[in-house]
Amino acid sequence: MTLVSAALICGAIAVIYGLFTSAQVLRASPGDAKMQDIAAAIQEGAKAYLGRQYATIGIVGVVMAVILFFTLGQLSTVGFVLGAVLSGVAGYVGMHISVRANVRTAEAARTSLQGGLTLAFRSGAITGMLVAGLGLLAIAGVFWYLTGPAGYAPGDHRIVAALTALAFGASLISIFARLGGGIFTKAADVGADLVGKVEAGIPEDDPRNPAVIADNVGDNVGDCAGMAADLFETYVVTLGLTMVSIALLLPNSDHLAALMALPLVVGGACILSSILGTYMVRLGRGESIMGALYKGFWTTAIVSVPLIWGVTKWALGDLNVNLNASAFLDGANTAVTEAPAAGTAALAFTGMDLFWCMMIGLGVTGLLVWITEYYTGTNHRPVKSIAKASATGHGTNVIQGLAISLESTALPTLVIVVAVVAAYQLAGIIGVAFAATSLLALAGMVVALDAYGPVTDNAGGIAEMAGLPDDVRHRTDALDAVGNTTKAVTKGYAIGSAALAALVLFGAYTTDLERYADALGLTEPVNFSLNNPYVIVGLLLGALLPYLFGAFGMTAVGRAAGHVVEDVRAQFRDNPGIMAGTSRPDYARTVDIVTRAAIREMIVPSLLPVLSPVAVFFLVSGVSGREQGFAALGAMLLGVIVSGLFVAISMTSGGGAWDNAKKYIEDGNYGGKGSEAHKAAVTGDTVGDPYKDTAGPAVNPMIKITNIVALLLLAALAGGAG
Amino acid sequence: MTLVSAALICGAIAVIYGLFTSAQVLRASPGDAKMQDIAAAIQEGAKAYLGRQYATIGIVGVVMAVILFFTLGQLSTVGFVLGAVLSGVAGYVGMHISVRANVRTAEAARTSLQGGLTLAFRSGAITGMLVAGLGLLAIAGVFWYLTGPAGYAPGDHRIVAALTALAFGASLISIFARLGGGIFTKAADVGADLVGKVEAGIPEDDPRNPAVIADNVGDNVGDCAGMAADLFETYVVTLGLTMVSIALLLPNSDHLAALMALPLVVGGACILSSILGTYMVRLGRGESIMGALYKGFWTTAIVSVPLIWGVTKWALGDLNVNLNASAFLDGANTAVTEAPAAGTAALAFTGMDLFWCMMIGLGVTGLLVWITEYYTGTNHRPVKSIAKASATGHGTNVIQGLAISLESTALPTLVIVVAVVAAYQLAGIIGVAFAATSLLALAGMVVALDAYGPVTDNAGGIAEMAGLPDDVRHRTDALDAVGNTTKAVTKGYAIGSAALAALVLFGAYTTDLERYADALGLTEPVNFSLNNPYVIVGLLLGALLPYLFGAFGMTAVGRAAGHVVEDVRAQFRDNPGIMAGTSRPDYARTVDIVTRAAIREMIVPSLLPVLSPVAVFFLVSGVSGREQGFAALGAMLLGVIVSGLFVAISMTSGGGAWDNAKKYIEDGNYGGKGSEAHKAAVTGDTVGDPYKDTAGPAVNPMIKITNIVALLLLAALAGGAG
Repeated sequence: MTLVSAALICGAIAVIYGLFTSAQVLRASPGDAKMQDIAAAIQEGAKAYLGRQYATIGIVGVVMAVILFFTLGQLSTVGFVLGAVLSGVAGYVGMHISVRANVRTAEAARTSLQGGLTLAFRSGAITGMLVAGLGLLAIAGVFWYLTGPAGYAPGDHRIVAALTALAFGASLISIFARLGGGIFTKAADVGADLVGKVEAGIPEDDPRNPAVIADNVGDNVGDCAGMAADLFETYVVTLGLTMVSIALLLPNSDHLAALMALPLVVGGACILSSILGTYMVRLGRGESIMGALYKGFWTTAIVSVPLIWGVTKWALGDLNVNLNASAFLDGANTAVTEAPAAGTAALAFTGMDLFWCMMIGLGVTGLLVWITEYYTGTNHRPVKSIAKASATGHGTNVIQGLAISLESTALPTLVIVVAVVAAYQLAGIIGVAFAATSLLALAGMVVALDAYGPVTDNAGGIAEMAGLPDDVRHRTDALDAVGNTTKAVTKGYAIGSAALAALVLFGAYTTDLERYADALGLTEPVNFSLNNPYVIVGLLLGALLPYLFGAFGMTAVGRAAGHVVEDVRAQFRDNPGIMAGTSRPDYARTVDIVTRAAIREMIVPSLLPVLSPVAVFFLVSGVSGREQGFAALGAMLLGVIVSGLFVAISMTSGGGAWDNAKKYIEDGNYGGKGSEAHKAAVTGDTVGDPYKDTAGPAVNPMIKITNIVALLLLAALAGGAG
Repeated sequence: MTLVSAALICGAIAVIYGLFTSAQVLRASPGDAKMQDIAAAIQEGAKAYLGRQYATIGIVGVVMAVILFFTLGQLSTVGFVLGAVLSGVAGYVGMHISVRANVRTAEAARTSLQGGLTLAFRSGAITGMLVAGLGLLAIAGVFWYLTGPAGYAPGDHRIVAALTALAFGASLISIFARLGGGIFTKAADVGADLVGKVEAGIPEDDPRNPAVIADNVGDNVGDCAGMAADLFETYVVTLGLTMVSIALLLPNSDHLAALMALPLVVGGACILSSILGTYMVRLGRGESIMGALYKGFWTTAIVSVPLIWGVTKWALGDLNVNLNASAFLDGANTAVTEAPAAGTAALAFTGMDLFWCMMIGLGVTGLLVWITEYYTGTNHRPVKSIAKASATGHGTNVIQGLAISLESTALPTLVIVVAVVAAYQLAGIIGVAFAATSLLALAGMVVALDAYGPVTDNAGGIAEMAGLPDDVRHRTDALDAVGNTTKAVTKGYAIGSAALAALVLFGAYTTDLERYADALGLTEPVNFSLNNPYVIVGLLLGALLPYLFGAFGMTAVGRAAGHVVEDVRAQFRDNPGIMAGTSRPDYARTVDIVTRAAIREMIVPSLLPVLSPVAVFFLVSGVSGREQGFAALGAMLLGVIVSGLFVAISMTSGGGAWDNAKKYIEDGNYGGKGSEAHKAAVTGDTVGDPYKDTAGPAVNPMIKITNIVALLLLAALAGGAG
């Protein structure tokens, strides 16, 4: 069996696992008529959202496909469409299951905590396995077709072009889904509260509020569909660009095919370990839900070690690569006459070096999970300090929350820095790429943990609205509480992987520059030294993007919430039967309005990372020539990650900490629910909402889009490449 | 008359202006007995603070001086001590006047708005002129002594060492004064509110609250003494390092002495235009206070144009420098065989090119003032949008404030980027240095606008506490309102200059590396290309510093406020006469306690930028050799500015906008004082306080410290240089 077929089989197993588990979940009882009625409203809303979102994204996608067709040709267009469609499928199916698992989880929680946990987690695992499985099938399928039936050599530039376009399709959908979903969920949340609780005086989760269903739909839209598209993108970009980098850096290696296939089989092996892990999620004696989820995660991580060792041995045997220093360290850019000291270590690597790089990736995953848990879990200093600060008011709550936000960036940065140095010492930039690959290989399991969140969140809402007994509500609350942490974990994981991937992408950019030098009319190497002021200019402009993007995201939530308020007011006015409880509000209309608002609001910020690299290149080129244009563009790619890493981590960890500080107070600390401390904590939670669910997580696809657009721009300037 | 003597005379004129105006201010009536009593308490507190602060900083300074003496020798030690002492003097004298002008401003406001404005602004101008005058005297004096009596050549490495050490002395005091002052003022503010308003139920600014004087002292400590030390540092570092860069880049130029003296005479000329500007601050018919202040500022800016043209002509005549490309563009680091396209423009420059670079600097100053006014003034969209968001609650106020924070970084970044490109096109890195020099040359006027703030703030407090008539209080309120904007302007100006200065400092670092290559044992050039992973590592670690520093600053305010609360509680308990109004609280004790707390809290964050460069260099060197150590260290210097620029601007502009959104509501919008919107705006203001007065402004000296420590480390590793 070839390596690529093995990867394809594993991808297929993941999809089959998804179908099989879907059937299991759907077989469970959907509860009584009232519960089903509420769930139907959420499903109806979700369908309305998906219809409108895909219609809009479809238009953008078609425009982009036409542009790609005329600049880069047929192969890139097909790759782009494939990436876009599969990303959409992963999000669609995940959400389809999620809005059906919510009511079944509430029903299962009637009997036992384990029952609710199993249903909610299995539903998450479906999304997780589809993300990893479809991602792997897409990359491995393209690679198999082009090296097999189409007959290209593994290092052929058309394979590079197709994989890059595949990544672009996934990224473009992802930024729309992440940002649109993020705006949707928070606009619905804030809008429902403002008009329902404040104006109409009806309680939270009251079915008479037309926006309350939009709020529940939002959980699925943001944390399930948006997150699935995001992680699908991250998976495809990381594995795909690792293969691209290998092809670009070692075009003449005898082991090229095996090296390029290694990320695919590693991805396949980790799908098997992830599936095994999903069966280990069970409550122990202490009934610790987080403990149960971690059992699954650690099983996957530990079982992955021998599997990765095995597939590396299988793929590479006793591979020993030994190349000239400058090819790795300096690309085409500087005419270094002697090999630098560190370069020496980077030149030669064996298969086992790559294995150890992948162990570094697993280590980073584990550490990022642990650090996020520390910063957002209710039993550690950060969350407790925010809860304590709430006792003295709204202002001190927010100050402490912001302090924790800022602080939470330190440990992940140190972990990433150490990982980069270690992987680089082992195998140069290829080593960093493999560390990123193994990090992402666990995506199936990580997404499962995350997609569990919206299901339990909805289950709690349904239990409340349907008036289920208190003990059921206690169980769904307990399930929901850990969801905040698992959601934060995934975001930290995604942005951490982006930092590693950005290095790999920058490497691909510089190697591409070298490859296309003649076609681009470059008569001299591009100067990427920090001494070049255009490099500083690029770094600053790149660093600005996450700030501007964050500002757009935060204000978009406010504006979109305004549209929700107007619609709900109109429904109450035009149909008095709603408040009387005699007629059902038009949930779909509110959902459609918030969908339109969310999609309209996200267009400008989504275009920012697509158009900025193009604008910077042409402006700087106009002033100082193409060499400086490429220097500024390259520096911009790194500027966006240098600042984006911090913006994203601070927002997602800070938001998670604020949310759980509120929960910690609701558990009876500092006066509990209704106290002044609780009110202050609610303010912090509101602030954290667009931080952690809108602006912060969308930084990850934004970073990737910027990088991939730069790669496509190079290819287009060079006259098309596929 | 020589250029340097002219600069020395201008510096002396500034100091004489300060003394003369001090006498004028002190001659004004200090009001009635009650007002004098309150003012005496503030003066007493200020003295207590200064005593304790200088005792602590003295210890650090002596330790540092001893280290410098044994690593870098006598000359550097003397330079360090001079910079440190003069920075202290500028802060001390400014604060000395400020705490006496406050009560006189309140008294003058009894008669007219113009009277209060004149007194408050003159007091600010004293600080401004001392900052610029002492700064210029220090740099010009050192340069005069070493090139005159000591007989060194202008480009002698001992002059470079002395100027660098002078800058280090100023920077070290500055970070202590900025951060300590920032923690002090906000800890006193928050502490006084918590225990006074919340626990004891006494109104704000009640003289029975022992912390209320500390609160008023804090305004002076943070916005007068801290800011003066900060701008003194910025002035000395920018002018001094411009001279150092010229010496390093053009060591063999015939025009070296004239080029090095040019920043000094430009500084001198702008002192004259600043003095002229201070006499133009008068109310027009519309009684617009901001308009009156701007009249002074624009007079200074416009008069500076012909003055700078004149001194440039005088110093350089028809200078025409023409040098080999690689000396400018690439330093020692890459062996470029052909001159890059952009490099060509950078090689040759005339005296008039430098004049245009300085015009760019003036343009940047004007634009930064205008942008800050837009983001923090009450009559523009940003502040109004925060006020509007306050109507829907605490959470939406903070969300909109954070969105404005993030957004406010965009225009300053674009201005800086365009300025860097334009100045670089005109005269390479020397052009950027001269743009930074002319930007800083206006420091006298800018500091005057800023130091006006705490005087009017205190005047309002004194008017309230002394029970002056309502119309007086209205006048002091009007004077105070524009203070928020002018304070924000100075912070934006300082961080903007830091961005330009950082480029110059990085240039000095790379040139120094080349100069010391043999002594450092570097056998090959350091690779600063973005392709080198250690450069990425350095960028990420540098980018982390402002985040970690911000986190420390924010939490320090919370902890120090706790100490204030404890002390006030103890005073109330031990001396019941205080609440009865029969005995005076021990203001000095509270001030001393908050001083101790503030200074203790600031030690770790202040050491962060001092120790991090050293730690990064030795760690990376240990792993991968000295070349990579220097590469990571250099990248760290740029990482800290790439992220620090955004952190600082977002914090200072965002904080100013929050503050004025509260004032806008207090002016009667959205329900006015006491409304729900006002409560939400108070929350935003509290959040903005440590943002804009503690963490944000301290980023500027932090960036400089990191850079200078790197330069000193190089010199020390090379075996001392002076």
